[in-house]
Amino acid sequence: MLNVHLVPHTHDDVGWLKTVDQYYYGDRNDIQHAGVQYILDSVVDQLLKNPDRRFIYVETAFFYRWWKQQSSSMQQTVKQLVNEGRLEFVNGGWCMSDEATTHYSAVIDQMTMGLRFLNETFGPCGRPRVAWHIDPFGHAREHASMFAQMGYDGFFFGRLDYQDRARRMIDKEQELLWRASDSLTPPMADLFTGILPNGYNPPQGFCWDQSCDDPPIRDDPDLEDYNVDDVVNRFLTIASAQAAVYKTNHIIMTMGSDFQYENANLWYKNLDKLIHYVNAQQANGIKVNVLYSTPSCYLQELHRANLTWSLKTDDFFPYADDAHDFWTGYFTSRPALKRYERISNSNLQTCNQLEVLGGPVSRNGHFGEVKAMAVAQHHDAVSGTEKQHVANDYARRLANGWQHCQVVVSNSLAALSGSSAQRIYCDNLNISVCPLTESSKKFSVNVYNPLARPVTWPVRLPVNGTAYTVSDAKGKVVPVSRATQEVRRNWGFAVNELVFQVQAPPLGYSTYSVSLVKDGPPPTSTKHRAPTVIQNKNSVVQEVRQWFAPWVSQVVRLYADSRALELEWTVGPLPIDDSLGKEVITRLDTSIKTSEIFYTDSNGREVLQRKKDFRPTWHLKQSEPIAGNYYPINSRAFIKDDVDQLTVVTDRSQGGGSIHNGSLEIMLHRRLLYDDVRGVGEPLNETSNIFPEGLVVRGRLLLSLDPPPTAADTHRPLAQEMVLQPLLTFTDGNLNPHTQLEFSGLQAALPPAVHLLTLTQWDKDSVLLRLEHQFQSWESKVNSQPVTINLQKLFSTLEVLGMSELNLSANQWKDEMIRFDWKPQTGTGHTHTYLSNINTFLVQTENVPNKY
Amino acid sequence: MLNVHLVPHTHDDVGWLKTVDQYYYGDRNDIQHAGVQYILDSVVDQLLKNPDRRFIYVETAFFYRWWKQQSSSMQQTVKQLVNEGRLEFVNGGWCMSDEATTHYSAVIDQMTMGLRFLNETFGPCGRPRVAWHIDPFGHAREHASMFAQMGYDGFFFGRLDYQDRARRMIDKEQELLWRASDSLTPPMADLFTGILPNGYNPPQGFCWDQSCDDPPIRDDPDLEDYNVDDVVNRFLTIASAQAAVYKTNHIIMTMGSDFQYENANLWYKNLDKLIHYVNAQQANGIKVNVLYSTPSCYLQELHRANLTWSLKTDDFFPYADDAHDFWTGYFTSRPALKRYERISNSNLQTCNQLEVLGGPVSRNGHFGEVKAMAVAQHHDAVSGTEKQHVANDYARRLANGWQHCQVVVSNSLAALSGSSAQRIYCDNLNISVCPLTESSKKFSVNVYNPLARPVTWPVRLPVNGTAYTVSDAKGKVVPVSRATQEVRRNWGFAVNELVFQVQAPPLGYSTYSVSLVKDGPPPTSTKHRAPTVIQNKNSVVQEVRQWFAPWVSQVVRLYADSRALELEWTVGPLPIDDSLGKEVITRLDTSIKTSEIFYTDSNGREVLQRKKDFRPTWHLKQSEPIAGNYYPINSRAFIKDDVDQLTVVTDRSQGGGSIHNGSLEIMLHRRLLYDDVRGVGEPLNETSNIFPEGLVVRGRLLLSLDPPPTAADTHRPLAQEMVLQPLLTFTDGNLNPHTQLEFSGLQAALPPAVHLLTLTQWDKDSVLLRLEHQFQSWESKVNSQPVTINLQKLFSTLEVLGMSELNLSANQWKDEMIRFDWKPQTGTGHTHTYLSNINTFLVQTENVPNKY
Repeated sequence: MLNVHLVPHTHDDVGWLKTVDQYYYGDRNDIQHAGVQYILDSVVDQLLKNPDRRFIYVETAFFYRWWKQQSSSMQQTVKQLVNEGRLEFVNGGWCMSDEATTHYSAVIDQMTMGLRFLNETFGPCGRPRVAWHIDPFGHAREHASMFAQMGYDGFFFGRLDYQDRARRMIDKEQELLWRASDSLTPPMADLFTGILPNGYNPPQGFCWDQSCDDPPIRDDPDLEDYNVDDVVNRFLTIASAQAAVYKTNHIIMTMGSDFQYENANLWYKNLDKLIHYVNAQQANGIKVNVLYSTPSCYLQELHRANLTWSLKTDDFFPYADDAHDFWTGYFTSRPALKRYERISNSNLQTCNQLEVLGGPVSRNGHFGEVKAMAVAQHHDAVSGTEKQHVANDYARRLANGWQHCQVVVSNSLAALSGSSAQRIYCDNLNISVCPLTESSKKFSVNVYNPLARPVTWPVRLPVNGTAYTVSDAKGKVVPVSRATQEVRRNWGFAVNELVFQVQAPPLGYSTYSVSLVKDGPPPTSTKHRAPTVIQNKNSVVQEVRQWFAPWVSQVVRLYADSRALELEWTVGPLPIDDSLGKEVITRLDTSIKTSEIFYTDSNGREVLQRKKDFRPTWHLKQSEPIAGNYYPINSRAFIKDDVDQLTVVTDRSQGGGSIHNGSLEIMLHRRLLYDDVRGVGEPLNETSNIFPEGLVVRGRLLLSLDPPPTAADTHRPLAQEMVLQPLLTFTDGNLNPHTQLEFSGLQAALPPAVHLLTLTQWDKDSVLLRLEHQFQSWESKVNSQPVTINLQKLFSTLEVLGMSELNLSANQWKDEMIRFDWKPQTGTGHTHTYLSNINTFLVQTENVPNKY
Repeated sequence: MLNVHLVPHTHDDVGWLKTVDQYYYGDRNDIQHAGVQYILDSVVDQLLKNPDRRFIYVETAFFYRWWKQQSSSMQQTVKQLVNEGRLEFVNGGWCMSDEATTHYSAVIDQMTMGLRFLNETFGPCGRPRVAWHIDPFGHAREHASMFAQMGYDGFFFGRLDYQDRARRMIDKEQELLWRASDSLTPPMADLFTGILPNGYNPPQGFCWDQSCDDPPIRDDPDLEDYNVDDVVNRFLTIASAQAAVYKTNHIIMTMGSDFQYENANLWYKNLDKLIHYVNAQQANGIKVNVLYSTPSCYLQELHRANLTWSLKTDDFFPYADDAHDFWTGYFTSRPALKRYERISNSNLQTCNQLEVLGGPVSRNGHFGEVKAMAVAQHHDAVSGTEKQHVANDYARRLANGWQHCQVVVSNSLAALSGSSAQRIYCDNLNISVCPLTESSKKFSVNVYNPLARPVTWPVRLPVNGTAYTVSDAKGKVVPVSRATQEVRRNWGFAVNELVFQVQAPPLGYSTYSVSLVKDGPPPTSTKHRAPTVIQNKNSVVQEVRQWFAPWVSQVVRLYADSRALELEWTVGPLPIDDSLGKEVITRLDTSIKTSEIFYTDSNGREVLQRKKDFRPTWHLKQSEPIAGNYYPINSRAFIKDDVDQLTVVTDRSQGGGSIHNGSLEIMLHRRLLYDDVRGVGEPLNETSNIFPEGLVVRGRLLLSLDPPPTAADTHRPLAQEMVLQPLLTFTDGNLNPHTQLEFSGLQAALPPAVHLLTLTQWDKDSVLLRLEHQFQSWESKVNSQPVTINLQKLFSTLEVLGMSELNLSANQWKDEMIRFDWKPQTGTGHTHTYLSNINTFLVQTENVPNKY
């Protein structure tokens, strides 16, 4: 008997053609007909009409909004449906995150937020067993690893390279076992992975949503056009064709699509009939059984089949849906939004930490930014694949989140420093604008460092004076440098830039005082000849400014004591007066013998090897020599040979490739004049009030050249400094003399191998703590080793009263996390060390006076 | 306090862009998104969620289908909703009939069928109190008269001439009292009439159907774009503007439109909020009260206002929605369908009568034709305003109905005649095709006459012999004429046409025997010179054949003993090789001094005066000298002066006008190459398999020239003979000698003033009988007089056991029909005699041997 699992579902983008609010309410239906509030209303109604019916829901961002608008009796009804398995949550994060352009830190946070809501609302029956990424445009290995560590039993998706699918259909390998880490001991990062048969759509001719035109089942013989026989025959043909390319006698059909089930009656009324009439054919000897089902029910049947599954250890990038349709440009699309999302994550982590460290007084809530960051992980958010007005909405939400966050930071710093002086934030330092520093004669700068080890960091402030003295928390004067503001860089009124290095302790701050020494008009600018050589330790910073075109420039910088070269690029507005769209790359050509191989990270964590015109699991027929060799870079890429490794650390997600031997290119910015006919209906042509001629984008690349065996010892901490950067706050005038100018939340810095990934208040009495071993098993002699941390001695102002380990998404106790076991077809893949893991703890704490 | 009555409703065309079945099931949503089954599912669900919510339903054709698919518990639920007034039926006929192109006989039937279903299903709570013609394209006085006689308390519609509306808005006369007959004693035909404010749509910006894009109410302050204040302000502005053009402090808003409420949740969720937030403003002194309501509830408030209302005695034709957009072409559109509908009605009446007269043995049901005729009355059916494939569907339904009907007729005639000989039907006599008569040497013709008085009728049969004898029921030979088949007329193989006059008794039949006398090849055709004068009584028939163009020809005929001249026109295929659409008229130019006045009937019943470039109720600014002077002709039109009246009786509904003095024109056929941008999306360009070059249409006009005082004595019976024409059935060979060759269902013919409108089996023990005084009060000295009929002595084979009088639609006892009384502003309109009435009786009968 062939069992056909019909899975009624809706795919509700947390923003795409419309904003998340427009989607929720069903506003702007002229752009796209979609109203999630009505979907949930309707589905619940229809589930109640027939106990056989099933539905799955995915995006907690929407479900949460709907839930809080329901009456308690409706909430009770929905709980009942969940308890009976008629409504099942799958995936369950705040959104269905993008896989190419997200950072693991933000993905874990958004998954944790969504799953926590489900857990607290529905208990164990609300815990999703299946990860469900039906729409993202390619799939990252690190996502699979995270899903495994979050306790999912399996993973389903819809999009993969068309050649890959064709091969897998022939070999019946559309269901497989993904071993998603080369460092974690199996099956820690093993994830059963199923590729859905029709993307996430219903089979041809069986879409009964209000948005579809397929013929309904007309089963009243009194009316014209009775079509039951036709429908049944078409269905049996499709089911049998599908069964031929899958391994078991169970197959799955996704009965739904984008924003479907707004009027669920249409779907269910016809599905009820379909099931009835097809199964009625069993009496005629037809060996097909159709049933309402869910992904977890389908997965259970696959598990019960007790087969072995082909093993995959690479990832699903890049994704092409046809020979000349590679989805690799979006790795870079909307570079300003991608950077804004990244810096917002840094601020959020700082905010979370300070809420914990500052104690109850700082807890005024900053849910705004948490939600804004969570929706920004959506696969049409940070990915850059949304409409312009929606991108603007994400940015606006993040900006609102910053506002909330700054309140928490101010409260916390006031508590920790003992100073209630007003704290001022300069959110526009990236364009050299800060009214305070531009006008004040005396101000102080608080530098908070969210990393668990001390950092040195260059501060650049717009000023109008010609000379300043800067002293550190101990009153010691620090060296300063003064740069003339470059016209191209300056969107404000400051004529000079004050540059100095600051140092901040682990999870702590240090305060610097700045005093104007010499006022008056700026000195006449002196033209410097471009030097051919620059070296560190001449000064605070040495820099060379390169001007390639009115719309492409770069500053090359060497800071004192830094192991990295900084390339600050400024690109835009990209000219379009030739009616051609443009993509701007930076290319590093070296003598390194790369043998067509380079390396990129996956979601900012483990690194994967890439080979030109090659895919590990099928014989690639390359049709696009550049686009077909581009991969997502989230935090770093490198090229190496036996002698040298050139690592580039990025400040945001970008696309890149190694098209020529010894060469590494990264796409910085892009501007297109034609829509790509994938639904957005707009060319990617970013302009704004400030940039009517086209967006100008600025960013930084850090370059490090090391011997390969020690390269990770450099790039791992370097990338972390890029991801979690110090937050500057300012106070005008003299500080209260009793102000505590320096603070660390830790008793001591953590060892280099260990990253403090999460420290956030969980509830009144406990905090969520994630500690991460950040080195892969093979990348460092020194650091790819196990490390022991004593949690009791970790914090300086928190007494640890107790702790328990959780799964990665914090919705299950670690020791209760029992996953399906799946057998690979061959071998065990890599050899493994138990490394590169993230431990998640719920820690009961009490704020105490500083023990440090 | 201004009370705003929100009336949630859906307008469900019983066929238009899709067929009635496609609309019911939601098939072919690629043409138009519409599925009535889901509308009713959804509305019932939503009504149950809030007892304040209301909904009205109109089209029983759809409701009936839905009802019979429901479980008994759902039926019980719906009954409860009806009993509580939460679901209210308005109008309630099988469809919302067209007003320009329908015949009163078929309209009464379709209303009766729909209302009967509601009555028997829901009892008194299911009886509509309001007539609701929100979409028909102009409004007929006879419809208003019928609605009054059906017991409706009021009538609402949406479309009227744009100049008329403008004037009425200024004078607050959008609500009025329509005195819809110049012959019935007021208030018998008085109907309170309300013109809806937005056609039948919601006010601008307040459409919350899934088919609309208006912004939903976003009332969660946590979300972006909170818009409650904006919505409330816009609503108050609109309500106040509307109140300014109506008379009372109650106004109505139609919250719905075409096929809306498929997902009723969208509407109701937002309406709930609208009502809540607007009424909340009462606390701020806003004097507006919004409520869920129904037309009957609104009407009740108008009645309670106890005002006087302006009196209207003409009608609402023609309808123009702009200066050059007169909706008058559809009076003629699809002339073949219009004729097919009319002849189908004739057959249906015959069928109904024979079912009664033949007794139980004939009752095999013929519901098919009843329903087919009922849906054909829809304002996008017989009107010709539907898509081509939908027109084809109506025709196919009617053809299916004929098949059912023929079974009843055969059963009944077998019972009445005592002959079980197989009866053969020649449905294609209109194109001179009848295989039996073309090949048989001996056959008989049964001529059934559905009129309550004897008729003489010319029979034309296609034959291949050269000489035949025809004898009547008494064996007497009757004169025959033989015409050579004209090539243009002949779609079959017959070479000759046999013509003879038959006579048939009231509600009865007579049988004629035809024998071939001389076989063989046809004689050489002799060309006749066109005579300049033809006269009756030369022969059976005298005819002149006129050939104007390959696509326009006409036969002028005079039958022996007939008072009328017959013009048989054949038009088509209209040539379009010049890329121009065409409308073909026939124009009768006379010396009659018409003074720009002519007369047309209303739905085949009372006659209204028309004046060129003039409307009785406003100062017309004429913008279309021809289209703006066209009126619907359902059965007759005439021009007259003191001496002469030329009456034209038509065989179907057509448009016509008197553009020049002494002239009367009638549009026969039209073919257009451009869509009129009113939604159909197709040009009216009829072709078919049989007519690939364009439809050929044939029809008849009967002309009668009389002195005006006696003209009605001629045209009333003449028109009836056109509407209810004899049905011919054939049997091959010799008849059984015991066959009863003649029969009448009446004991005697009814007087000329009385028409037997309806005789149909109602249930096992009773029949529905309608007797009509068919003369207006002013049109005949002889016949515009009261008449007395003894029902006990009416039928020859039915014993009358009892009888009760009903309202016109047979859904209420006449003595229980208590309607709202409305006061006209001025006078009493016409002086009246109690004439022109239709009496409807439920008669308990028993079939008995022929008493006659």
